[in-house]
Amino acid sequence: MKALYFDGAKLQLKKDYPIPARGSGEALIRVKYAGICGTDLEILKGYAGFRGVLGHEFIGIIEESDDKALIGSRVVGEINIGCGRCEFCQKGLEKHCLKRVALGIRGRDGAFAEYITLPERNLHPVPDEVSDLEAVFIEPLAAAYEILMQVHLEPSSRVLLLGDGRLGQLIAQLLRYYSDLTVVGKHPRKLELLKRLGINALMIDDLGFNERFDVVIDATGSSEAILRALKLVKPMGILILKTTTSTPSSIPLSEIVVNEVRIIGSRCGPFEPAIRALRDGLVRVDYMVDGVYPIEEWREAFKKAMDHNTLKVILKI
Amino acid sequence: MKALYFDGAKLQLKKDYPIPARGSGEALIRVKYAGICGTDLEILKGYAGFRGVLGHEFIGIIEESDDKALIGSRVVGEINIGCGRCEFCQKGLEKHCLKRVALGIRGRDGAFAEYITLPERNLHPVPDEVSDLEAVFIEPLAAAYEILMQVHLEPSSRVLLLGDGRLGQLIAQLLRYYSDLTVVGKHPRKLELLKRLGINALMIDDLGFNERFDVVIDATGSSEAILRALKLVKPMGILILKTTTSTPSSIPLSEIVVNEVRIIGSRCGPFEPAIRALRDGLVRVDYMVDGVYPIEEWREAFKKAMDHNTLKVILKI
Repeated sequence: MKALYFDGAKLQLKKDYPIPARGSGEALIRVKYAGICGTDLEILKGYAGFRGVLGHEFIGIIEESDDKALIGSRVVGEINIGCGRCEFCQKGLEKHCLKRVALGIRGRDGAFAEYITLPERNLHPVPDEVSDLEAVFIEPLAAAYEILMQVHLEPSSRVLLLGDGRLGQLIAQLLRYYSDLTVVGKHPRKLELLKRLGINALMIDDLGFNERFDVVIDATGSSEAILRALKLVKPMGILILKTTTSTPSSIPLSEIVVNEVRIIGSRCGPFEPAIRALRDGLVRVDYMVDGVYPIEEWREAFKKAMDHNTLKVILKI
Repeated sequence: MKALYFDGAKLQLKKDYPIPARGSGEALIRVKYAGICGTDLEILKGYAGFRGVLGHEFIGIIEESDDKALIGSRVVGEINIGCGRCEFCQKGLEKHCLKRVALGIRGRDGAFAEYITLPERNLHPVPDEVSDLEAVFIEPLAAAYEILMQVHLEPSSRVLLLGDGRLGQLIAQLLRYYSDLTVVGKHPRKLELLKRLGINALMIDDLGFNERFDVVIDATGSSEAILRALKLVKPMGILILKTTTSTPSSIPLSEIVVNEVRIIGSRCGPFEPAIRALRDGLVRVDYMVDGVYPIEEWREAFKKAMDHNTLKVILKI
């Protein structure tokens, strides 16, 4: 099959990559579309030390499974696969299993390929109201929902979101329902798209001096944004980190200690509310698609995805 | 009066420093004893950019006050003084007032002097059961109690305390009542003192590989301990930071994000439970006093305090 493989140094499209073997309880899925995510771009820079087929945002059709009723289903999938036995797996927290693999990120080939396998328990059917291209956003939208699983945002909370990119656009659309939200970014086009949705969005330098927020979210993807975030969060406030980068950050711990700030790392989240939000039109993703490329044109697709003015690029497999 | 003054470069004992003028609502306190804290030693290295009289752990006698009934009272004092009008002061969180001063740390002369002033609302009478030297530990013990104000420790939680020093000894004695506690440090003598109290204490290198804890507390005073702490805390676990140092730490944010760790900065805490704990013998501090020096012998006192095998050094004013 065709598969976009990363050998630790460079990406290449393999034409005769083996179709993965389906294990017990797993489904074989034919991938239709897969999105290029910031994490994919970080992996190309060395993040997570991954070798294999990239890609973890996808929609596909089940071709084989133990449960024959599933065959033909249009599905998206949760990307973490745990050992099933440890304290985290027992609590339903496979994403924190220390022995886990993760689709296209850690120890398991991903979705920039004609076929993937995933445990049936990881799969979610996609309602007809959600188009194929929209469904590619379910995985990152679930990651945005994770914030709401972790923190109780009060309607009167002043929330600042740093980052107007792929994930920032999704987080912004959710959090506007929950709190008094301000988004700051560095990209006029992306901020303009948020403004058209009625979201309070401004260039980072236009933020007032001495403003402090109850909650600050870093979805910039930059290792340096946390320093700014620590200046913008109120004492005893909450700083939510979404940025995964291979670059370490230099942080004065005393600012965290003296201001008694709470920092919360936030990663993958629940698929069900993300699917509901797209089905019911609570969140819009259509405007974020900046290109759909056949997998053969992966070079152009990645070039486009790396452009700072681009939101989402999707591969048609 | 005598006062131990830091000019930004060096400490010196001034013999004719002016006695501070008592403002409205404030008491004039004759200091009896004052403890040398890790924060004082950090200030000498540049932390907080403080210039003035050092010292914030003290016991003294009220000599003048608006409330005449207080005169002659034996008191300890909370060190933060807020503006009284901002949202933090209104909520009783003066320690987070952005305009606050803090005794011997920020904008206000401290307790290594014959006299200090503090608002009467900052003062707490010391019960007869608590000796003068014990009372010097109330301020740091309150800082240990702050952890229990911030986090619900479950009795079955596995808690790891990094640090066997001044603050570590106090935190260890509290947390043993709350959870399954392990303390690790680098100083055989200090660990031995903890063991004599029945606390599970070991050298850092004797900690088992692959052990992970629900809660990890960094009370090392070192900017590097957080890296070890991030390896020792479970996914979704809590990392409490007590270390204030002028040295920035280099931290891979992705470890926080991927493991969804919660980091909580923790500073000053409530005096009342600290006073009760000493009055009722829940916490022992007598064994921690490694020297009591008249203020004139401040050079010897600071030299002793800087020795890594020393716990508490107290100045007699």
